[in-house]
Amino acid sequence: MKKLIIIILLFAAVNFTGVGQRKIVNLPDLPGYVTLKCDFHLHTVFSDGNVWPTVRVDEAWRDGLDAISITDHLEYTPKKDFIPVDHNAAWKIAENYARDRNLILVHGTEITRNMPPGHFNALFIQDASLIAVDSVWDAFAAAIKQGAFLQWNHPGWRSQEPDGIPKLYDMHRKLLQNKWLHGIEFFNDSEYYPLVMTFCKQYNLTVIANSDNHGVISEKYKEPAYTNRPMTLAFAKARTHDALKEAMFAGRTLAYFKDMLAGKEEYAKPFFYQCISVGKPYYENEKSIYFEIVNRSDVPFYLINGVPESPASITLPANSITRVVVSRKAALPLVYDVKNIITGEDEVLKVELTFK
Amino acid sequence: MKKLIIIILLFAAVNFTGVGQRKIVNLPDLPGYVTLKCDFHLHTVFSDGNVWPTVRVDEAWRDGLDAISITDHLEYTPKKDFIPVDHNAAWKIAENYARDRNLILVHGTEITRNMPPGHFNALFIQDASLIAVDSVWDAFAAAIKQGAFLQWNHPGWRSQEPDGIPKLYDMHRKLLQNKWLHGIEFFNDSEYYPLVMTFCKQYNLTVIANSDNHGVISEKYKEPAYTNRPMTLAFAKARTHDALKEAMFAGRTLAYFKDMLAGKEEYAKPFFYQCISVGKPYYENEKSIYFEIVNRSDVPFYLINGVPESPASITLPANSITRVVVSRKAALPLVYDVKNIITGEDEVLKVELTFK
Amino acid sequence: MKKLIIIILLFAAVNFTGVGQRKIVNLPDLPGYVTLKCDFHLHTVFSDGNVWPTVRVDEAWRDGLDAISITDHLEYTPKKDFIPVDHNAAWKIAENYARDRNLILVHGTEITRNMPPGHFNALFIQDASLIAVDSVWDAFAAAIKQGAFLQWNHPGWRSQEPDGIPKLYDMHRKLLQNKWLHGIEFFNDSEYYPLVMTFCKQYNLTVIANSDNHGVISEKYKEPAYTNRPMTLAFAKARTHDALKEAMFAGRTLAYFKDMLAGKEEYAKPFFYQCISVGKPYYENEKSIYFEIVNRSDVPFYLINGVPESPASITLPANSITRVVVSRKAALPLVYDVKNIITGEDEVLKVELTFK
Amino acid sequence: MKKLIIIILLFAAVNFTGVGQRKIVNLPDLPGYVTLKCDFHLHTVFSDGNVWPTVRVDEAWRDGLDAISITDHLEYTPKKDFIPVDHNAAWKIAENYARDRNLILVHGTEITRNMPPGHFNALFIQDASLIAVDSVWDAFAAAIKQGAFLQWNHPGWRSQEPDGIPKLYDMHRKLLQNKWLHGIEFFNDSEYYPLVMTFCKQYNLTVIANSDNHGVISEKYKEPAYTNRPMTLAFAKARTHDALKEAMFAGRTLAYFKDMLAGKEEYAKPFFYQCISVGKPYYENEKSIYFEIVNRSDVPFYLINGVPESPASITLPANSITRVVVSRKAALPLVYDVKNIITGEDEVLKVELTFK
Repeated sequence: MKKLIIIILLFAAVNFTGVGQRKIVNLPDLPGYVTLKCDFHLHTVFSDGNVWPTVRVDEAWRDGLDAISITDHLEYTPKKDFIPVDHNAAWKIAENYARDRNLILVHGTEITRNMPPGHFNALFIQDASLIAVDSVWDAFAAAIKQGAFLQWNHPGWRSQEPDGIPKLYDMHRKLLQNKWLHGIEFFNDSEYYPLVMTFCKQYNLTVIANSDNHGVISEKYKEPAYTNRPMTLAFAKARTHDALKEAMFAGRTLAYFKDMLAGKEEYAKPFFYQCISVGKPYYENEKSIYFEIVNRSDVPFYLINGVPESPASITLPANSITRVVVSRKAALPLVYDVKNIITGEDEVLKVELTFK
Repeated sequence: MKKLIIIILLFAAVNFTGVGQRKIVNLPDLPGYVTLKCDFHLHTVFSDGNVWPTVRVDEAWRDGLDAISITDHLEYTPKKDFIPVDHNAAWKIAENYARDRNLILVHGTEITRNMPPGHFNALFIQDASLIAVDSVWDAFAAAIKQGAFLQWNHPGWRSQEPDGIPKLYDMHRKLLQNKWLHGIEFFNDSEYYPLVMTFCKQYNLTVIANSDNHGVISEKYKEPAYTNRPMTLAFAKARTHDALKEAMFAGRTLAYFKDMLAGKEEYAKPFFYQCISVGKPYYENEKSIYFEIVNRSDVPFYLINGVPESPASITLPANSITRVVVSRKAALPLVYDVKNIITGEDEVLKVELTFK
Repeated sequence: MKKLIIIILLFAAVNFTGVGQRKIVNLPDLPGYVTLKCDFHLHTVFSDGNVWPTVRVDEAWRDGLDAISITDHLEYTPKKDFIPVDHNAAWKIAENYARDRNLILVHGTEITRNMPPGHFNALFIQDASLIAVDSVWDAFAAAIKQGAFLQWNHPGWRSQEPDGIPKLYDMHRKLLQNKWLHGIEFFNDSEYYPLVMTFCKQYNLTVIANSDNHGVISEKYKEPAYTNRPMTLAFAKARTHDALKEAMFAGRTLAYFKDMLAGKEEYAKPFFYQCISVGKPYYENEKSIYFEIVNRSDVPFYLINGVPESPASITLPANSITRVVVSRKAALPLVYDVKNIITGEDEVLKVELTFK
Repeated sequence: MKKLIIIILLFAAVNFTGVGQRKIVNLPDLPGYVTLKCDFHLHTVFSDGNVWPTVRVDEAWRDGLDAISITDHLEYTPKKDFIPVDHNAAWKIAENYARDRNLILVHGTEITRNMPPGHFNALFIQDASLIAVDSVWDAFAAAIKQGAFLQWNHPGWRSQEPDGIPKLYDMHRKLLQNKWLHGIEFFNDSEYYPLVMTFCKQYNLTVIANSDNHGVISEKYKEPAYTNRPMTLAFAKARTHDALKEAMFAGRTLAYFKDMLAGKEEYAKPFFYQCISVGKPYYENEKSIYFEIVNRSDVPFYLINGVPESPASITLPANSITRVVVSRKAALPLVYDVKNIITGEDEVLKVELTFK
C-alpha cells in the first residue's frame, strides 16, 4: 500500500514515449525558398571536442536544425594518445545516424593554421584525410578539388588578431582572386565581427553564423543568457543536401544568433516582412489609431528612430503581439530602423509598417 | 566613472517600450471559423475577488485571450462595508479599457444560490442590477429577458455536492424544458466534471471552461503546475461580440485547460487535425518507415492504444516535432485514442494518422 | 477505466496541502541583530492601487518579507466614485490578516504633494485620517505628533524632477532642522538616486528601498529581469514591530534591489562578510593557490579592480561556490571593490579576502 | 555610433569571469560527520558513454558533488573500432583535472555480466585492467584483492530481470558469505528497487544511489521532471578520499533522488531533523496554535497520516517556510509519516514535530 504511493510519486514526472521530440524553430521561409537552419562548425573527441559525433546529431535534431557539419581540426588532435587520428571518423560514425533523424549531415573539416591565413572550414567534401597536408595552400587546393565550400572561421579571433579586427592578408587576397573563398563567419560562438559584412558585400561572400562548439551545446546556449544557438539560415530551393550546397554557394543566407540577424539587405528585408504582420486598426478616435503587430518568429525586433509624433521605439518580442497606439499626426507608413538586423558594418535594416 | 558602471548594471534588464505585448496562444482556427479564446467567469473587488476590474482586462490581454466576462456575485458582496454594492460597476469600469485593448468584454453577472440550483452566470446581458431579485426563478427570467446566455457553474462543486457529482434537480429540468439553460462548465478553476459531457450531449448544451478566478491569474496558473489558464474556445464567424454570442448559443466550443480538451466530437476532431500534420516518410528501409508529426499547437496530445506492430503510444508535445519509426508490418493509417481529448463521460477522441 | 486515466492526468500537477509556504530569503543576520526584510511603500484600491489590502500581505508573506506598510495616498483617491474615501481602511482590513501570517504590519500613509516637497510616507502612525489636512506642514506635524518615521519618497522621480536629480528645497531643509525627516528612498520601484547616499550620510538619515507597487508584485518583479522585489533590510534587536521601529529611527539599514545593495559602510561591510566565506586552499603548487569562496546569500557580488597578479575581477553568484586560482605572486589578502555594494554617491565597498 | 549600440546589445548577457562557479547543494551534515554528495556510476567514450572523462568532472563540480567514480564497462567497449581499449584511460585523464577542482575522484570500473550475477562496480581500486578477466568470480577476487568496495548495480533492471524484482542467486549468496558484497543501488538512473532496502538491512549492506549516466547529465536531470541527479549521501569523518571510503564500507549513507531519500532509519531520522526546524508558536487563540516549520534543505518532505484534529498532511517544500495552524485539541507533539523517506521495503520514516 505504501509502496504503491511511493511508486506513483516517482512515476509522475517520467515521460515514456519510445519516440523523440524536437523543437520547432519559428523562422519563416522566404517566397520560393525553404529556410534551412544550419551549424557548420562543430567539434568532437576526434579533435579537441568533448563529445562523441552522434551527440552533435542529437543536439541539432533536438534544437530543430536542418543541417550540421562536424569539422574536427586536421592539424590539432590533442587526444591522439587515446584516440588514433582518423580525419573521417566523425563522418563515418554520424552519417547513418543523421539520416535516420532527417538531419542533413555535411561532410566537413577544419584547416587549422596560424594567422595568416587562420582557420578555415572545408564543407561539402568527400575525404578529409586528403586535405591533411603540410602546405596550407595545398590544403586549400585539395579541398577545392573536392568541390568544397571554403569558409573563413572567426577572422577576428583575439588569439590570432589581438585587436579583434579581421584583416585581409595576401593569402586571403589570393584566395579571393582564385574564387576559392566562399564565406566568412560573422558570428562564431558568442563573438561577432562587424567588418565581415563589408568583406562579404565587397567580394560577394556568404555571411555565416556557427557555434564552433567543443563541449555541450545545451550547457552553453541556455536561458537567460542565450535563447538559441548560433545558426546560419540558408534559403534553399528544397530541404536537401544538394539544395543546401547550392544556396551556400549562391550566398542566400542570414546569420542568426541571440537576438541578432546579420546579412545582405536583399534577404534581411523579405525575411523581416515574413516574420511580422501589421493588423488593420481595431479602434480609432480623434486623437489616435490603435493597432497590433504580430511577430510570429523566434527573433525579437527592436524598432528605433521613429519619426516625430510616432513612438520613438517599438519592441516586437519573439512570438508575441504588440499593441501600438499612434497619434493621428504621425506620418504613415511608420518607418523604423531595426536595431538588431545588421546589413552592413555600420548599417541596420530600415523598414516600413503598413496596415494590412 | 563608477556611477556610470552602476547605472549600466541597473539598466541592462529594464525594457522600456511605451507599448504593450501579449502572448500568442497557438490554437488553430477551424475551417470557416475563428477560434476565440474566452474566460466567462471572473471576480473582482465588487464581490469577493481581490482585484480591480481593469486587472482582469490586463491579464486576459497579456494571456492572449479574445474575450472575457466579469461575473461578480449578485448575492454575495462581502466587501460591502468598504465598497457600496453596484452590480454594474465592473462593467462600467472595464468597458472602454477593454475596447482600447482589442478585447471583447461580455457583460455578465453570477446568480449565486444554494444547490439546487447552485450558481449560474448570465452572459451577454445589459443590466445586472435587474437580475438581483429574491426568487431565483425571477432572476433567471430577468436574465433571459435580457437575452442572456445562461451557464450553470461548477455543477459538481464539493461545497454544494459533497460527492463531487453534478445532479439534475427539478429546477434544472425546468430550465431545460424552458430552453433557458445554454451551457455548463466542464472545467472550473482546477476542477472538472466528466458527467457534464453527458448532460451537454443529451440536452445539446454548450461545453465551457472558465477560471472562476478571485485572485491573480498569473499566480494561480503558472509553471510547472499549469501552462495555461482554463479557457473556452468558441468557433465564431468573426472576432466580434455578436459573432461570439452566436457561437456560444450555437454550442460551437471546446473546453480547454492544462493539457486537456473537452467537447463534442464534431469540433474536437477537426480541431485535432488542424493542430497536427503528419509528414511524408523521409526514410524507409526493409523493416521500418521513418516520419515526423508536427504539432503546431499549445496542446500536447497523448496518443494511446496503438494497434500491434505500431507504437503503443505516441506523445506529441506542444509546439514540437515528433519523430516516429513504425514497422512495415503496422496497419496504415495508424489509429489511436487521444487520451486528453474528452468527447464523452467515458470517451476520448479516436484519430487516424495519414501520411501527407 | 478511461476516466481513471484522465483523472490521474489532471491530478498529478495539483498540490493540495491546506497550509501555506513562503520563500526563504537568504540574507544573513548581523552579529547582535536580526535582518528584517521590509517594504514600506505599497498601494491598494483605497488609493490608486489595483488590489485589495490582503493581497499585499499574501505577497509579502510568500516573498519571505518580515514587515510591510500599506501607504495609500491621502490626497489622491481616483477610485472614490466607487470606493468611499477611508484613509485607515487598508489598515483595518489587513491588521489581523497579517498577524495570523506572522507578518509585521506597519500602519502608514502617503502625504502626496507637488515638488517641493514631493511625496512622503508617514510610518508607524495610529490614525491616517488625522494627517489628511490642507497644509503640507500641518500634515507633517500631525504625523510627527503620532510618532511617525517620515520618509521622503522617490526624491528624483522624473514626473517631479525632470532631470532625475533629487534637490533639497527650503521645505526639506526645514524638515531636517526640525529632525522631522528620518529616511529617504534610495531605490523606488526600478529607479534609484545615487545622490540619496550623500544626503543620508550628511544628515544621518536612514537609507531605504521600497517597491511603491500599485499592481501585482509577482508580475513586476520576475525573472529574468528581476530576481527579487526592492526591500529595506533593517537590522533590529528582535523580530517585533517595536524593534523594527527602533532600527529604522537608528538608521540601521541597507537598501536592496536586484543585484545591488546600498547603505552605510558600517552595515555594508559586516553584511558582506556574513554573506561570504573564503575556504582554506585545497591545492597548491609552485605557481598557484587554489581555493573556493562560498556565497550563501541571494545577492551576487561582483568583485573588481583586483591588483596585479590576482584575478582582475571575480563574480560570486548568489548561493554558489566559486573556484579561484591565484598566482603565488599575488599580494595577500586579495583586495577588491564590490561593484554592486554602493556606500556613497561615487563609492563602492572595498573588501579583503582572507583564507579561513 | 550604431556599432556601439550593437556591441552593447551582445555584451549584456555575456558574463566574463575567468573563474568557475558551482551550485550549493543544501543537504545538512550529521553531527560528527560531513555529508559527501557522490555519484559512483558514470560512463565515458571509453566504454559506451558519449562524453570525455573531464566532462564527468565538470558536471559533478558544477552540480555541487563531492566525489564521483567513472566506471566504464570492462566487457563492453562498443567504440573500440575508433578508441583502443584502455580500462584505466578515464582515470588517467581525469585524475589531476579532478584534483584541481577539489573533487574527490574514486578509481572504479564496472564488471558487466549477464544475470546472474549481473553488473557490479568495483570502487576504490588501483588498476582496472587487472579485473578484466574471463571468470566473473576471478574478476570479483581481483577487485577484492585491490581493496575494492563491491557494489551490485541496478539489481532489478528489466533487461536482466523482466519482472523488475531483484533476486538473490547463488552467486550473490556466495558473495555475501565471503563478505565481498558491500552495497547495492537502490536508485539507478530513474529506476529504483524497494526490495533493496530489505537486502541492505538483512545483510548490513550500504544503500546507494547513482546516475549510471552515459550521455549528458544536464540534459537528463533537468526541471520540471527532475530537480537533481541521483546521489549517494555518505556521512564521512572528513572530506577526503579515505574518509569517504571508510564511510562507504561502514554503510553510513542515504540514497537521494528527485524528492526521495532511502536508507536506514539511524541515518534518515537525524538527517530529517537536521533539515527542518519547528518554530515557537507566533500566535495563539482559544481555538488554534499558529507556527512555522522551516525546511532549509533541497529535499521537500511530504508528511502524511496526521492524527485526528491535526492536519492530515503537511508539505514542507524544499528551501521554504511552511505556516501551520493546528487546533488546540490536537495531541502534541504532532506525529507524521514522511512519505518520501523510505526506510524499508514497505516502510517510511515516522517523525515528531516539537516546538522549539
